[in-house]
Amino acid sequence: MNTEKRAATGANAEQRHQLARGAAIPLYHQIYLTLRDEISRGARPFGSAMPTEMELGESYHVSRITARRALDELAVRGYVERRRRLGTRVIYREPHKPIEAPINQAVESLIEFGQNTAVKVIEVTTGPADETIAEKLGLSEGEPAIRAVRVRSAKGQPLGVIISHLRTGLGVRFTPEDLTGTPLLSLLRDAGMHIGGAVQTIEAMNADPEMATLLKIEPRAAVLHVERLVENDRGETVLVTNAYYRADRYRLTLDMHETGQFTPQFG
Amino acid sequence: MNTEKRAATGANAEQRHQLARGAAIPLYHQIYLTLRDEISRGARPFGSAMPTEMELGESYHVSRITARRALDELAVRGYVERRRRLGTRVIYREPHKPIEAPINQAVESLIEFGQNTAVKVIEVTTGPADETIAEKLGLSEGEPAIRAVRVRSAKGQPLGVIISHLRTGLGVRFTPEDLTGTPLLSLLRDAGMHIGGAVQTIEAMNADPEMATLLKIEPRAAVLHVERLVENDRGETVLVTNAYYRADRYRLTLDMHETGQFTPQFG
Repeated sequence: MNTEKRAATGANAEQRHQLARGAAIPLYHQIYLTLRDEISRGARPFGSAMPTEMELGESYHVSRITARRALDELAVRGYVERRRRLGTRVIYREPHKPIEAPINQAVESLIEFGQNTAVKVIEVTTGPADETIAEKLGLSEGEPAIRAVRVRSAKGQPLGVIISHLRTGLGVRFTPEDLTGTPLLSLLRDAGMHIGGAVQTIEAMNADPEMATLLKIEPRAAVLHVERLVENDRGETVLVTNAYYRADRYRLTLDMHETGQFTPQFG
Repeated sequence: MNTEKRAATGANAEQRHQLARGAAIPLYHQIYLTLRDEISRGARPFGSAMPTEMELGESYHVSRITARRALDELAVRGYVERRRRLGTRVIYREPHKPIEAPINQAVESLIEFGQNTAVKVIEVTTGPADETIAEKLGLSEGEPAIRAVRVRSAKGQPLGVIISHLRTGLGVRFTPEDLTGTPLLSLLRDAGMHIGGAVQTIEAMNADPEMATLLKIEPRAAVLHVERLVENDRGETVLVTNAYYRADRYRLTLDMHETGQFTPQFG
């Protein structure tokens, strides 16, 4: 069992699971969601035994009927198989390992991914930048920016929604078709721009309903949000990219051996 | 409005919001959750006007009564204020900006955080390592490892749960009190160990109920999971740390100017 992740559930296996009682979400569905998350992230691997109704009831402080309903819901959705005498077993197989993107070249990950992933351009528009984007691009509010929305997929399934905002007047011109075949950074380079650096911010967030629709995940499923501010060699931010990756399909890795970055400072 | 994040909701403001109809979660509660997420991550800032019941009903394809219930729930929980004629306004203020931890020194972030954050040691135990941890530490399954669980807080609120697994026989000895005052890496160094490098993996995930309890967030709220495999100078992994940070309180930043890491490779 993958206790590296389960570990956060506390050392004590007898620790009681807490549910939001009196909440709008029925208890059995809360248990279902918890167990399903555990299964889908590999903490309960294919073939492993699920707790019995009685064990579930005890650990969640619910009736056996409620526990049964949670297990039934898992069975209906194809996560587990319930067999008389043999009990309940996980039959879900992780569809694919998450892609591990090296963060050292993360600004380039769109380019690298280009070889293994497909891009669908949702839209390319030019219009007034909102406050946040304007500030980051050094524009006055309402000044226009180019906005490109793409969905990147791997193996036929969405991997992430990539929303880019570019200054206008950079001499960069492209059609949605260009963006399908060529990474945005390559287009910038082709337009004569020198990239000076970038700042990335990485955070977790819950998907909102529209993002969830584009990514084919449930609303509130975890998403890895990577913001990249790309600067030219004069230090001006020319491109703001916000990428929202499916948590189950995308991870970042940082190897701190080769880069010389690992400089422990013990205070 | 913070459209860098809202951007993923699609360019078209008239795009219909999708709800999971027939799901166990009532529609009004789905709308409540969505709006609450938008408020708590700053996409709907303090003082901004919420949509009217009619607007909400239209964009989510629900009755005005359902829309009202969502807004009422937000009001009851203190996110918005509803006033006759004036409409509904956001009254929630972000309690604090998320901490932005530079990823370049992220292995050291526990040490750096030591100055501004408090540690509560939940437990320190020695016991058989499970399969995943054993594999990462190069142990046979069931061989013992030291396990330390800590909760790190800033400004009196939990920031992250840190679960560390160490090989035994490293000559490192510490009590829970030692860990409260001294970062684990410092203890390793004090025991004569040389740190050779580290590999980090960063992903988003939904909190399970126990993690949510420790972090004082809701189950399924997004969490940033950082795994750190710390190696000695012989390349042996001596420490596996899994940190689970509150998405609303912790971000990673990577500045690619000074490190010389930013080496665009245009294929």
